[in-house]
Amino acid sequence: MPVRRELEQVQARLRDAFRTSIPILNQVGGHVLATRGKKFRPTLLLLVARLRGQLDRDAVEAATAIEMVHAAALIHDDSVDRSELRRGLWSDEMAIIMGDYLYAQAMTILVEHHLDVAMGVLARVVTEMSCGEALEFQYAYDLDVTEEQYEELVRAKTASLIGAATEIGAGLNGSARHRAVRERYRAFGERVGVAFQIVDDLFDYLGDPEVTGKPVGYDLAEGKVTLPLIAALREASEADRRRLKTLALRKRWSPAHWSQLRALIERCGGFDYARARAAAVALEARALIGDRASASAPVGAPGGAGARAARRALDRAVDYAVQRDH
Amino acid sequence: MPVRRELEQVQARLRDAFRTSIPILNQVGGHVLATRGKKFRPTLLLLVARLRGQLDRDAVEAATAIEMVHAAALIHDDSVDRSELRRGLWSDEMAIIMGDYLYAQAMTILVEHHLDVAMGVLARVVTEMSCGEALEFQYAYDLDVTEEQYEELVRAKTASLIGAATEIGAGLNGSARHRAVRERYRAFGERVGVAFQIVDDLFDYLGDPEVTGKPVGYDLAEGKVTLPLIAALREASEADRRRLKTLALRKRWSPAHWSQLRALIERCGGFDYARARAAAVALEARALIGDRASASAPVGAPGGAGARAARRALDRAVDYAVQRDH
Repeated sequence: MPVRRELEQVQARLRDAFRTSIPILNQVGGHVLATRGKKFRPTLLLLVARLRGQLDRDAVEAATAIEMVHAAALIHDDSVDRSELRRGLWSDEMAIIMGDYLYAQAMTILVEHHLDVAMGVLARVVTEMSCGEALEFQYAYDLDVTEEQYEELVRAKTASLIGAATEIGAGLNGSARHRAVRERYRAFGERVGVAFQIVDDLFDYLGDPEVTGKPVGYDLAEGKVTLPLIAALREASEADRRRLKTLALRKRWSPAHWSQLRALIERCGGFDYARARAAAVALEARALIGDRASASAPVGAPGGAGARAARRALDRAVDYAVQRDH
Repeated sequence: MPVRRELEQVQARLRDAFRTSIPILNQVGGHVLATRGKKFRPTLLLLVARLRGQLDRDAVEAATAIEMVHAAALIHDDSVDRSELRRGLWSDEMAIIMGDYLYAQAMTILVEHHLDVAMGVLARVVTEMSCGEALEFQYAYDLDVTEEQYEELVRAKTASLIGAATEIGAGLNGSARHRAVRERYRAFGERVGVAFQIVDDLFDYLGDPEVTGKPVGYDLAEGKVTLPLIAALREASEADRRRLKTLALRKRWSPAHWSQLRALIERCGGFDYARARAAAVALEARALIGDRASASAPVGAPGGAGARAARRALDRAVDYAVQRDH
C-alpha cells in the first residue's frame, strides 16, 4: 500500500483531536477512534493525490479532515438510525455533540492550512449529505421509489463524500485550478461510492450478520427501500408485486417470512440486477480515470513508479468496493 | 433601528435556504423560521459593521451565516436538552439533519462570498460551542462546580457565537487585517454573551413561565448548575449548604420544595450575586468599545450619523441582554 505512512499520520492527527481539556470528549473520542478502521475515504484521497504528484503535508491534513467528516456523519447518522453500531457506548446527546465537534475540527484543519478549494468542497458535500439524509426520510417506506431516486439518494448521502475525497486529492499539488480534472476525479469517486453503497444494500438481504455485524433486514425495517427490492418490484408480475409489497412492509419478520421475501426478490431478479448494476457502476468509475491497461498513463497525471503503484492500489480499492464481504 | 433593512434581507436569505427540492426539508425549515425571532446575533454583527463603515452585501451574507449557525446549534442543543422549545414539531432525527444542513449552508455562504476571515472564526466558534456542550455534560449535577468553571462553560457554549458575530462585524469593510480591533470586538461580544446567559440562568429560578415559555427549574432538573446556586452554595452556612444540596439534587420539585429552594438561594444572596455579576460583565463589555459618553468616537471607527445611531443601538442591545424579561 503506497500510502500506508500517510494513513498512520492521519490516524495520529485524529488521536490529537481528542487530546482536549474535556475528559468526556476525549473518552467518547477514544471509542470513535477504536471503532473506526478502514479509512476508505482518506485512502482514496491520498492515492489520487499520489497518482498525480508527491504527497505533502496538505494531503495528510485534507485526508484527516475527510475522515473527520465521515466519522461525524456516521455518528450523526447512527444516532438518526438508532443502529446497533454504537452499542450503547454513548448517548444520543453526546453523539450530536461529538459529530458537531468533528465537523468543526475538519473545518479548522482546512482553514488553518489554507486549503480553500477543499473547504469549498467540504461545504458542498456536507450540504449534499444532509440533503441525502432528508431524502431518506422523505422516501421512507415508499415502495414506489424509482431506481433514479434511489441512486440520487445514495449519491447524495454516501457517494458525495467519496467524490469529495477524490476531488480534493486531485486538487492538491497545486492542481486546484484544474477544474476539469477535479470534476473527473469527483465523478470517479462518486461512482465508486454508488457501487459501494449498492453492495452495502445487498448485505441487508444477503450478508452474514456474523461478518457484517448487522442483522439482516435492519435497513428495510427502518424503511430503506433499496435496489434489490426496487428492481424486483419493477420486474415482478402483478401477483408477485402484491406479495412483495406486503412482505416488505412488515417491520419484523419471522424466519419463514424473511425467507419468502428473499426468495421472491431472488426470483424476480432483484439481487442479480443490483449485483450487475454495482459492477457496471464500478466500470464507469474506472473508465473515468482511464483503463487499467493504460495504467502507466493515467488521465493528466505525471508518471513514475509511485504513481503506477498508486494506480494499482486505486484499482484494488474499486475492486474492494464491489467485492468485499462486509 | 439602523440595520432593519439588512435584517429583512437576512430573513429573506434564510427563507431561500429552505427552497430546496426536498419537501420535508422545506417543511421543517418553515418551522425553524417561524419559531425564530429576535435575531440578536445578526443584529450585533450588522451594528458593529455599521459602526465601523458602510454595510455591504458581505455584511448581510455573514449575518445570515451567523444566524444559521445559531439556529443549527439551537436545534442540536434542543435535541440534546429535550427541551419544550421544539414542541414535538419534528423528530430528533430530523433535528440532527436540519442542524447539519444549516451548518453546511453557513459554510457555503462564507465560501461562496470568499469571507475567509469569517470562515476561520466560524470553524473556531463551532469547536468552542461543541466543547461548551461537552463541558455541560461533564459538569452535569456537579454541585462543586466553581464560578470560573461556570463562566468558561457559558463563554464557550453561548457567548462564543455572540463574540464571533461582533468579531466578524468588525472585520468587514476591509478591516479583516486589524486583528487587535477584531479581538476587542470579539471580547465585547463574548462579555455581552456571558451577561446574557447569566440573566437567562436567573429565569430558570425567577422567570415567569408564561413569558419565558419554559417551566421554572427546567435547567436545574437537567443538571445545569448555574450562577445563583453556585453563589448561594459558596456563601451558605454549613447547614444551609447541606439543605441547598439536597433540594437542588431533586429532579422534580413540589411547589413547596421549589419555594424552599428559591428562598434559600435568595437568603444566601445567590440571586443578588448573579444580577450584580451580569451588570458588571455588561459594564466590562461597554468599556471594551468605549464609554457611552464618547459614543461619537468609538474605538478605531470612522464617525458619522449612521455610526452614532449604530452605537446607540449597540448600547440598547447590551441593555437588552441584561434587562430583558425573557
